[in-house]
Amino acid sequence: MAAERAGQMDATSLGVFLAETFPQVAGDFAIESVTAEGLVLRLRVREAHLRPGGTVSGPSIFALADVGIYLAILARIGPVALAVTTGASIDFLRKPAADADLLAEVRILKLGRSLAVGDVLVRSDGAEAVVARASMTYSIPPKAAG
Amino acid sequence: MAAERAGQMDATSLGVFLAETFPQVAGDFAIESVTAEGLVLRLRVREAHLRPGGTVSGPSIFALADVGIYLAILARIGPVALAVTTGASIDFLRKPAADADLLAEVRILKLGRSLAVGDVLVRSDGAEAVVARASMTYSIPPKAAG
Amino acid sequence: MAAERAGQMDATSLGVFLAETFPQVAGDFAIESVTAEGLVLRLRVREAHLRPGGTVSGPSIFALADVGIYLAILARIGPVALAVTTGASIDFLRKPAADADLLAEVRILKLGRSLAVGDVLVRSDGAEAVVARASMTYSIPPKAAG
Amino acid sequence: MAAERAGQMDATSLGVFLAETFPQVAGDFAIESVTAEGLVLRLRVREAHLRPGGTVSGPSIFALADVGIYLAILARIGPVALAVTTGASIDFLRKPAADADLLAEVRILKLGRSLAVGDVLVRSDGAEAVVARASMTYSIPPKAAG
Repeated sequence: MAAERAGQMDATSLGVFLAETFPQVAGDFAIESVTAEGLVLRLRVREAHLRPGGTVSGPSIFALADVGIYLAILARIGPVALAVTTGASIDFLRKPAADADLLAEVRILKLGRSLAVGDVLVRSDGAEAVVARASMTYSIPPKAAG
Repeated sequence: MAAERAGQMDATSLGVFLAETFPQVAGDFAIESVTAEGLVLRLRVREAHLRPGGTVSGPSIFALADVGIYLAILARIGPVALAVTTGASIDFLRKPAADADLLAEVRILKLGRSLAVGDVLVRSDGAEAVVARASMTYSIPPKAAG
Repeated sequence: MAAERAGQMDATSLGVFLAETFPQVAGDFAIESVTAEGLVLRLRVREAHLRPGGTVSGPSIFALADVGIYLAILARIGPVALAVTTGASIDFLRKPAADADLLAEVRILKLGRSLAVGDVLVRSDGAEAVVARASMTYSIPPKAAG
Repeated sequence: MAAERAGQMDATSLGVFLAETFPQVAGDFAIESVTAEGLVLRLRVREAHLRPGGTVSGPSIFALADVGIYLAILARIGPVALAVTTGASIDFLRKPAADADLLAEVRILKLGRSLAVGDVLVRSDGAEAVVARASMTYSIPPKAAG
């Protein structure tokens, strides 16, 4: 837990944290890599994520962006289960490829004492075109500063 | 179906349309009323919508707003299964009450030939405080104009 | 100044505060009324606000919403010059009427210790159609709580 | 003008277009470079852009992002004076440096027949920290497709 005490979590410890804290959704996600700017998160697309016509639903893409930015914040400050999303904007740009997972490329743009902001580009696995763009703000509880 | 031909759907026909088109989520929602400005949509909060601590998850609130604005557009223009969300912004303002459904009060602000915009206030059933605010843009396919 | 000490400002004291704090833009705005939910702010549309074709520019409408929500927060908590906008979303729905002022109808949706959120509908003076919708988040400095 | 007929404008022709179409604000901006993803636009910060305390005003940063994405769309599709902003979200992350211009790094994320979406990171000239993030949607008039 030395890395976490130092306020840094790698892909493995983020995965463990996700499984323990959000057991109901953890199986949907896989942390591909932790990068200098943020991380890459995979949504394992299943039947439950789809809308008629085979499109991944908007709320599923929203959840991917939300979990991705949340984990990227934790990668920097360590496990803070109580960070909460206060605001988000999202643009749905293209229909995702059928039968492909989605990959979210997350950047942390600000990590302040009380607010963190990140943005995300979502693409179908193996494709270049951007499926969605999102940015979100998280409120970080005071205890996290200690 | 006269009402639908005229481009207007009431709460009952919206409910039927929802059940036929989105069977996997239709059970989560109930149309409370269709108003002059839009409609009121209920999210029947269940275990699957919750996050640790008993909070309704962000993606569940996003889905409530998304479905609410979608149905309010259909209430005006009739059943157009292919209208798609192109953009959304959402602010999470307060933790919802435990053990209460959520009610979304939807207003349609613009209904153009190709774009429709609505906004939503989300409250816990029986409470005045606003839990979340959202606004969304939908792209309406050309055939819908016919 | 008793009203301000109590954390409440009326239209007159808001106007004085605006003129003292933002002398370079105060002449553009007039506070029409302070309401239970927020306030109504007028943009006195002048040549400098217009784009080719006679449309009021996006940044001018953004400024109207921004100043409107700011003043509505001050109407509740008293003069806090250092509250800053941290996030905003805006939808431009229709071209405003030529040769008409704009009116912003502001609602405060949340007024917390550190964050405040409001939304705005902008219309041309004398018209019903909504020209723009905006929502904004303000960060309130800790001293304001005292 | 061959480049424009081909639907592509370089920094010089964008600058000429800006000066002819928006003479009232063209002097505030300088196109630094046109990139594969979009372009870099400079805001020449002057007294008129400042708020008390020396901060660049929110509407000025909004205008920088708005003009930057607009020009980056034109760089791809040629001069289309009637493209209009339909929606925008912006996050203000840090106070910009005093006495420095602002640079907006624009990416076009989608360029469809009727809608274009771009995002922007704004930094103080010479600094790494992101001052603001914005994303905007433009509606492209049908004639532009010809």
